[in-house]
Amino acid sequence: MAESMAGLSRSHRCTEVSRENIGEKVTVMGWVQKRRNLGSLIFVDLRDRSGLLQLVFDEDTLADDDYEKANSLRNEYVIAAEGEVQKRSAAINENLKTGDIEIKVTKLRILSESKTPPFPVDDQQTVKDELRLKYRYLDLRRPNLQKNLLIRSQVTKTARDFLAEEGFLEIETPILGKSTPEGARDYLVPSRVHPGSFYGLPQSPQLFKQLLMCSGVDRYYQIAKCFRDEDLRADRQPEFTQIDMELSFVDVDDVIDVNERLLKRVFKDVLNVDVQIPMKRLTYQEAMDRFGSDKPDTRFGMELVNVSETVSGCDFMVFKGALENGGSVRGLNARGLGDLGRKKIDAFVDFAKEFGAKGLAYIQLKEDGSVKSSFAKFMKEEEMTALIDAMEGKPGDLLLFAADKDSVVYDVLGNLRLEIGKKYDMIDESLYNFLWVTEFPLLEWNEEQNRYTAMHHPFTMPMEEDLEYIDTDPGKVRAKAYDIVLNGTELGGGSVRIHRDDIQKAMFKSLGFTEEDANERFGFLLEAFQYGVPPHAGLAYGLDRLVMWMTGEDSIRDVIAFPKVKDASCLMTQAPGGVVTVQLDELGIEIKENDTNEE
Amino acid sequence: MAESMAGLSRSHRCTEVSRENIGEKVTVMGWVQKRRNLGSLIFVDLRDRSGLLQLVFDEDTLADDDYEKANSLRNEYVIAAEGEVQKRSAAINENLKTGDIEIKVTKLRILSESKTPPFPVDDQQTVKDELRLKYRYLDLRRPNLQKNLLIRSQVTKTARDFLAEEGFLEIETPILGKSTPEGARDYLVPSRVHPGSFYGLPQSPQLFKQLLMCSGVDRYYQIAKCFRDEDLRADRQPEFTQIDMELSFVDVDDVIDVNERLLKRVFKDVLNVDVQIPMKRLTYQEAMDRFGSDKPDTRFGMELVNVSETVSGCDFMVFKGALENGGSVRGLNARGLGDLGRKKIDAFVDFAKEFGAKGLAYIQLKEDGSVKSSFAKFMKEEEMTALIDAMEGKPGDLLLFAADKDSVVYDVLGNLRLEIGKKYDMIDESLYNFLWVTEFPLLEWNEEQNRYTAMHHPFTMPMEEDLEYIDTDPGKVRAKAYDIVLNGTELGGGSVRIHRDDIQKAMFKSLGFTEEDANERFGFLLEAFQYGVPPHAGLAYGLDRLVMWMTGEDSIRDVIAFPKVKDASCLMTQAPGGVVTVQLDELGIEIKENDTNEE
Repeated sequence: MAESMAGLSRSHRCTEVSRENIGEKVTVMGWVQKRRNLGSLIFVDLRDRSGLLQLVFDEDTLADDDYEKANSLRNEYVIAAEGEVQKRSAAINENLKTGDIEIKVTKLRILSESKTPPFPVDDQQTVKDELRLKYRYLDLRRPNLQKNLLIRSQVTKTARDFLAEEGFLEIETPILGKSTPEGARDYLVPSRVHPGSFYGLPQSPQLFKQLLMCSGVDRYYQIAKCFRDEDLRADRQPEFTQIDMELSFVDVDDVIDVNERLLKRVFKDVLNVDVQIPMKRLTYQEAMDRFGSDKPDTRFGMELVNVSETVSGCDFMVFKGALENGGSVRGLNARGLGDLGRKKIDAFVDFAKEFGAKGLAYIQLKEDGSVKSSFAKFMKEEEMTALIDAMEGKPGDLLLFAADKDSVVYDVLGNLRLEIGKKYDMIDESLYNFLWVTEFPLLEWNEEQNRYTAMHHPFTMPMEEDLEYIDTDPGKVRAKAYDIVLNGTELGGGSVRIHRDDIQKAMFKSLGFTEEDANERFGFLLEAFQYGVPPHAGLAYGLDRLVMWMTGEDSIRDVIAFPKVKDASCLMTQAPGGVVTVQLDELGIEIKENDTNEE
Repeated sequence: MAESMAGLSRSHRCTEVSRENIGEKVTVMGWVQKRRNLGSLIFVDLRDRSGLLQLVFDEDTLADDDYEKANSLRNEYVIAAEGEVQKRSAAINENLKTGDIEIKVTKLRILSESKTPPFPVDDQQTVKDELRLKYRYLDLRRPNLQKNLLIRSQVTKTARDFLAEEGFLEIETPILGKSTPEGARDYLVPSRVHPGSFYGLPQSPQLFKQLLMCSGVDRYYQIAKCFRDEDLRADRQPEFTQIDMELSFVDVDDVIDVNERLLKRVFKDVLNVDVQIPMKRLTYQEAMDRFGSDKPDTRFGMELVNVSETVSGCDFMVFKGALENGGSVRGLNARGLGDLGRKKIDAFVDFAKEFGAKGLAYIQLKEDGSVKSSFAKFMKEEEMTALIDAMEGKPGDLLLFAADKDSVVYDVLGNLRLEIGKKYDMIDESLYNFLWVTEFPLLEWNEEQNRYTAMHHPFTMPMEEDLEYIDTDPGKVRAKAYDIVLNGTELGGGSVRIHRDDIQKAMFKSLGFTEEDANERFGFLLEAFQYGVPPHAGLAYGLDRLVMWMTGEDSIRDVIAFPKVKDASCLMTQAPGGVVTVQLDELGIEIKENDTNEE
């Protein structure tokens, strides 16, 4: 039966004990990682947050009942042990921080027993995710997840320190907010005081942080919980965390500067990694042209080449048709893959098709100097030569071409580039390549709604030099919006906001909003803007994703203490669950009959 | 029309400019607090987060259009001004940090115009709360609320710094949690993926933080949003913030020690106030006996005196009846109030009745030596003398007595004490009197449910020395629970948790829970406890209330950026609001017909 701790007080965490304590009496507490008996000795590996420490129980010197207790110890029992630090009697364990010492126990308490856990508490990854998540409290005991929680905590601490030094105030914005017509994916919360009315959980603190700028707060930050009720992709969570900030009286360069220094500080303090600043910047257009992506992974080359002009005169219908329809022909040079077998190249073609390509044209420049191509027969020899030259093709290279409208070509080649880079180990995993992508288009054409929609959001400031097009050619207007990209992942993004009434009106017009529409959607913010609004700008990071990169994990689940699974449920608590009718009555709602819930 | 900031860059906040900058060119940006014209000069008080700075525009030297612009400035316009710092030409303002300087403006931009605001942006408090809250972004511009936001930010920063130094990890627990049968006041969140199922928003991270201890986290903290859907008392919010912590392998004194040092640090760093530690401690019983309250305001005396024995032989039926029914007779000595008029004493009687007293017996010991009493006629003279002696009554004192069962007597006299203390200025408002109240009863008898309920929560550890009573006389068992009290307000509270199976079972038995009940309520925590649980304890502060004390405000609304009002609505955003039916359809719920919503 479990005992009380009373009278004992922990003196050290496990790995806080070292050679320097030899001869001292210490008290340690933690979980039994392993027990093994060796003659009259019992060895126990004790585990706490800090790591492992060896305890030794000697039948000859220990009180009988304590020895018996030691002999009863099983994995995951929680114990307190008092004893003297000594040099290891048995072999030194080089892999352990405390590998050269042990505690010769003189007093033992069993604080809590444990059933046999459903899986061993170690970093071997053979256990099913579902089982781990059901017993998350056991899974979290693994050194790897302990390390992730520690790093996450250090990241937020360092970010907070830096932002405080830079004059940012931490301010909480409401979780119980207003659902807007834009918020099709808002979680709703019925109100007891106002039956039939609902709060909306925020997808971001966007409106509130802009209101704080109107309030004269000047510099705001918050590490904020955000919510999105949508079908979860592989690596999304219904609730997620942003490092969110907003600044007054600033322009693009100010925001970039403060955030470069923030990231430099976080990577240095937490990982001891030196990040070079200023970071590289690419405009959206350049990123698309060179990498086929607005979040390029720049850890390797293999950039896209626009060969539209080179092939403009050829008769190959795939190329010709794309160009005639206003599209382009672009290529990738996969160096060193010229001798790949047919099957592997076919796999690239299939991959390209997943992203909307009708096909993928290729030229194999074999090491032996021979050339094999899927479309040579449609091309003149000098056209082929020009094309290979344009791609800087050499023996041993594989040239891959997509021809379609630009958006498809970018998507196909951008993804194909990543696929090849990963598959053929072209990526230096030791790098942290940061990159700003700037000058995003302000608007994008929405085919479905037959109107422009805001690429970032409707308060994003156009670039001054493009203002003249906002009425006449809105698609051409670039925005003061920026994303921060790390190794091909978008870590965060933001924009300068519109603070001028005239520009806001023009923006709403481009979006096809009447004044009524705008008021219904953003009424209280627009009202606030009538009472003196400072120029302001902001940025938000996905904290989960940032920490995922910093811990080297593949899934954001591994950096969240209690994550949910794909169907937005929690396997440990079984949330969401049923509730009693009287609760719903008070809220003025009822569950609809089943017939309406059919899939 | 509003202009762009382009080409200008803020060099200083308003009060960052000082005499030391005289002769320098600076660029400042902010809101127009006031404009006044004086001959060919225009003076503008510019306001930003830091304070006020005087700008001067000189018709003789400024470009014509900039002067015209200056002349058009109205309150709350947002402007950028470039100019030279000079000694004030006009009278020095001693009340201003920048009172001896001004900026002679050479370039002006109007960044944003403002309509006439619905109330002036200053700290005069004549504006209705409702109007302030509707235009919260204007209200927040007031120096007083700016200061509150700053202090709140400093409090959380200092607390985080301290807790990080002490080895606490910041860990986020879910907002979308599970609603429990206990959670009658949970906010519910319908799930789109599981129509008809609901998440519950947490009233506290209690279960999760205990699970983190089971996970080996050792020391956890979080500044956590919590939610309670209840009729809001004057000063509650539907969402509120806790500084929440939990520690493993500790007992009561460890928790108290770390929290005393936390509070000392916060008060020192933020307010430069020295808090003496160790702080005073009172047991629950002592607090009730001396102050009639489990959160006593110890900034003044006037303690309760138990005169039950003194009056045990008297024939005054009010006293006699109370004692015969197992109650008590207790008194307060309101020194110096012996000569109060009848009306004022009657007001005390009425006040006492609000708290359940049937009446209030009193003795006026007038300055002139005469005695007036509401019940002298029922008492022998020597009984009166003994009673006055027991109360240490002197001429000029007013003695007030309540007789009833203990709970009523405590409540009446405890509240009366506070009322008199406030009304007659007995409280030294400059003090910060911290106090721990410990050894709370583990259980309280619930008349309605005819069973014991947990006073703190069902995982609270009984005191070892009282364990023997848990089966036989549960009401007698004291808990390892503690509250931290400041000037009569509960700032926070917590307890050591049960980590032993046998004690947990006895506790559930005392609460009348079957094993099934317990599992339904706390299933996943109880399951976790089967796999090795460390002794652990924790505490949570109400951050809003703490900051309220530190800012000297009377309402927590004044320390929350975007608070809600009594009916849990937001006057600025109009949340909660209606939603469209298609949203509800997806959630599998519908709004009930009106007949069921009638009050």
